[in-house]
Amino acid sequence: MKQIDECRIAIVGLGLMGGSLAGALQGKAAAVVGVARRGETVRAALKRGLIDEGTTELAEGVRGVDIVVLATPVRIILQQISEVGPLLAENCLLIDLGSTKTDILREMARLPQDVQALGGHPMCGKEASGVEAAEPGIYQGATFILSPLPRTARWALSLGQDLARTVGSEPLVLDGERQDFLVATLSHLPYLMACALIATADRTTSPDAAAWKIVAGGFRDTTRIAASDVTMMTDILLTNGEEVLRALGTFQEQIRHMADLMESSNEEALRRQLGKIREKRLEMYP
Amino acid sequence: MKQIDECRIAIVGLGLMGGSLAGALQGKAAAVVGVARRGETVRAALKRGLIDEGTTELAEGVRGVDIVVLATPVRIILQQISEVGPLLAENCLLIDLGSTKTDILREMARLPQDVQALGGHPMCGKEASGVEAAEPGIYQGATFILSPLPRTARWALSLGQDLARTVGSEPLVLDGERQDFLVATLSHLPYLMACALIATADRTTSPDAAAWKIVAGGFRDTTRIAASDVTMMTDILLTNGEEVLRALGTFQEQIRHMADLMESSNEEALRRQLGKIREKRLEMYP
Repeated sequence: MKQIDECRIAIVGLGLMGGSLAGALQGKAAAVVGVARRGETVRAALKRGLIDEGTTELAEGVRGVDIVVLATPVRIILQQISEVGPLLAENCLLIDLGSTKTDILREMARLPQDVQALGGHPMCGKEASGVEAAEPGIYQGATFILSPLPRTARWALSLGQDLARTVGSEPLVLDGERQDFLVATLSHLPYLMACALIATADRTTSPDAAAWKIVAGGFRDTTRIAASDVTMMTDILLTNGEEVLRALGTFQEQIRHMADLMESSNEEALRRQLGKIREKRLEMYP
Repeated sequence: MKQIDECRIAIVGLGLMGGSLAGALQGKAAAVVGVARRGETVRAALKRGLIDEGTTELAEGVRGVDIVVLATPVRIILQQISEVGPLLAENCLLIDLGSTKTDILREMARLPQDVQALGGHPMCGKEASGVEAAEPGIYQGATFILSPLPRTARWALSLGQDLARTVGSEPLVLDGERQDFLVATLSHLPYLMACALIATADRTTSPDAAAWKIVAGGFRDTTRIAASDVTMMTDILLTNGEEVLRALGTFQEQIRHMADLMESSNEEALRRQLGKIREKRLEMYP
């Protein structure tokens, strides 16, 4: 099996996630090749020293490499998997960085048999996007979910795990459907909540100039992810809609429960519920 | 009119907000007198140098002072206003630090006529509580809402504004009902959302050990305030219930709207909505 430092790695998409991954791999792989749609992005990534070589041609970028990482929005990944399949060298490992896995793994299952594939989802990021926002350190300490296909070879999964460790992340192997279920609640639902909070403030308090002076820390933190990249999030919501809507259903029940306790001024039950939730939060983040 | 540095200031309640205020006033007032229910808290505040003098006796603590700040949970404040009223010196200024103002201002209106009163709500804090969590710096740069009564003298409002500026905050004068409307959406609703997210995760994903490894930054930030002090938040929700439930209604509409767009896979409308929200977020926090 090849080691990461012997691999030529192509990274397709040089935005926040791809650009940061490229930077985190600098000096740790045989070569990091960047592929972006716009020449300007490639030039910026070269200038920032995130990649060793760069091109706007997908076919050129992935030619002869050992690992290809698709770091584009989910529905672009879906297109690129079939596009890139016939171009890959034998035993090339294809990984993606998309937030949802079920659709992507289904598409990966159609790849030529001599190509290895692995779903990937690093649990890091920030609300800024684009190559300017790239920051190799974001992978440090993050959980990097890896979702193999039934056909994924053991060595290919190991290579994926090595890649994750090389950029400072902790690999976590998860079945694709299980990952989609988990991130629906832990990542996609919080995004929808943040958006709904902004939309609510926009409809009610924003016309009052004072509102802008009192959007304190609580509101800022709670709504931070509402500034996430729109194309990325639209793709996520549309490819994980079923799980997200299910999570939303449970969320609505919880909201209604607390609203009921407030409406009936049931102090003891309200205090108990808030106390239980506080304990859970402290258990999650000790 | 007295200046802050000529005032003896009693602070009732030496938790996060009161203890921090005391510390921020150190060396800037004639004396800072701390009042807490437990002797242990008073001793801790003295030891940390947050207060000059301390007592567990409310009557003793407020005797002869120029300013009294009530820094307890809202429903304790409501009790303490009537309790403390007859004990105050002529022209003493009574301020509170509670998050909701309508009920508090109603109670303040019943104070003896020779006492001045002013609702206060500094828009700062953190989820930790207690005198150990006190940190004078939290007032720095914060908006400090001040809600006068119709009977509040102009000099008393000025003194309140000076107090806010002395601890590094920016005073913002707001009518009590307007403040309750604004903070319902900008502070209390985000708290409920954070709680509902934790409760949702607890019911769905928490039994899966992997969930604990993938509660990434987005979930952490979105739910931070769910760890807020339970007594404080129970009091807030019960004394601002009407406004919070109204804000919740608008929030539910926004959630339903986004869920509809997802269910119907209306990509264009979903993208437009998320884009509009992102712009609003960037407008709020440039």
